[in-house]
Amino acid sequence: MPLSQLESPEPAAVVEAAKAAARDGSMLTVEARCEVTYEGRTSGYLAAGDRILVAKPDGTFLVHQSTGHKPVNWMPGGGSVSARLSDGDAVLLARRTNPSERVEVRIEETYGLTRFDAVDGATYEDSGTEAEMHEFIKSNPDTLGADIRIVEHERESKYGYIDFYAVDDDGVPVVIEVKRIQATLNHFDQLQRYVSLYEETNDAVRGMLVAPSASERVKRALRDNGLEFVALEEFGRDAKGATEAKLSDF
Amino acid sequence: MPLSQLESPEPAAVVEAAKAAARDGSMLTVEARCEVTYEGRTSGYLAAGDRILVAKPDGTFLVHQSTGHKPVNWMPGGGSVSARLSDGDAVLLARRTNPSERVEVRIEETYGLTRFDAVDGATYEDSGTEAEMHEFIKSNPDTLGADIRIVEHERESKYGYIDFYAVDDDGVPVVIEVKRIQATLNHFDQLQRYVSLYEETNDAVRGMLVAPSASERVKRALRDNGLEFVALEEFGRDAKGATEAKLSDF
Repeated sequence: MPLSQLESPEPAAVVEAAKAAARDGSMLTVEARCEVTYEGRTSGYLAAGDRILVAKPDGTFLVHQSTGHKPVNWMPGGGSVSARLSDGDAVLLARRTNPSERVEVRIEETYGLTRFDAVDGATYEDSGTEAEMHEFIKSNPDTLGADIRIVEHERESKYGYIDFYAVDDDGVPVVIEVKRIQATLNHFDQLQRYVSLYEETNDAVRGMLVAPSASERVKRALRDNGLEFVALEEFGRDAKGATEAKLSDF
Repeated sequence: MPLSQLESPEPAAVVEAAKAAARDGSMLTVEARCEVTYEGRTSGYLAAGDRILVAKPDGTFLVHQSTGHKPVNWMPGGGSVSARLSDGDAVLLARRTNPSERVEVRIEETYGLTRFDAVDGATYEDSGTEAEMHEFIKSNPDTLGADIRIVEHERESKYGYIDFYAVDDDGVPVVIEVKRIQATLNHFDQLQRYVSLYEETNDAVRGMLVAPSASERVKRALRDNGLEFVALEEFGRDAKGATEAKLSDF
């Protein structure tokens, strides 16, 4: 099990766990009532309150209040996070040099603590917008099948916009969802919601997921539920090229 | 107890806890192996790996990998975070409208989950730089006491720069640490480290903390350890004024 949790640990146990996390390269999450001081380019103080603290093995340190996406205080990776007992309190100190900065958290009460040995080799891949794929389908409707006639692009529904609404040669409605990235089960869920919407008022409805590719698990889920998959492989290559181009900009 | 932890919860328990957190206004932290899709201005995909997920009651949603201070995916407050079971997996969906964006996390395995009812009324207060306070002390050394003569401003030590190094009329070294904000126990710790450094080579050393103010707990800690406190109250007023001026800029 790559995780261990403590509930209401004593200050000494918090210090010990924080030191062990830093030593072992674990991610550390602490739910605590604490006060925070910052010293660096300026000085600042955050009076006591309940927060989530996150320390990462690269020295990243985040203090999150209960609202807002930005941490109220933080330190980027590159520095270090240390822990000590001081006047009976657990104190976490994140610091770096150049510029010299320190975020120091004095914990009044620790509600919970989690150590997590995370294994993660993946990198986020941005595939650009779906717009060019929509244009391609509009210009090449045969891609969807010779029997398909597109009726409307981006039709509004109570679950959001359906990318294409079409009918086939038998007059059966076809709901088409287009994805710019490899199809996932979430996309399958979404298509199924759209199809179920049209099934309320139609005897037969076809559902079609269009994406550069799909895993076997997604293809199976579609097949098992009578839905279709169309691979637009050229957009898989484009997407990869775009990602590589971006990386080379740095 | 404002906190509850689950270790290795089943998908259904994750969905239930996430729904309860959203309903009750709790902060939710999940350690999990998951894949992430983003759809909005662009489309993107993060393949499976171990991450920390944080959902806040204001709709903020963060996906943190094991390095870096920025979340790999995130949604600001204002939207909503929902949870569902899909094909046996727990799925967390953070979405907002205007712009229409969604971050969807499909969880393969949940290692740990924490619900936290955080109470926090405090706001971070930036007090500007210490520089003007240093200038004031240089121009008004009597502030530190009639018997003090400043020898060096910003003297380097193995623990960092000492703000002022001085001697008193008896030739005893005086280590002076200046803080731009209300003195905290962390500042007391820092001063004590500096003083202990000089005690290695001197029979007597005085230590002095200079700040706009200090709590009774900090004053007691200083007193109990033979250290001195000097209040520069005018900088308390200045600091407050500066903070208010900043707020009015918005």
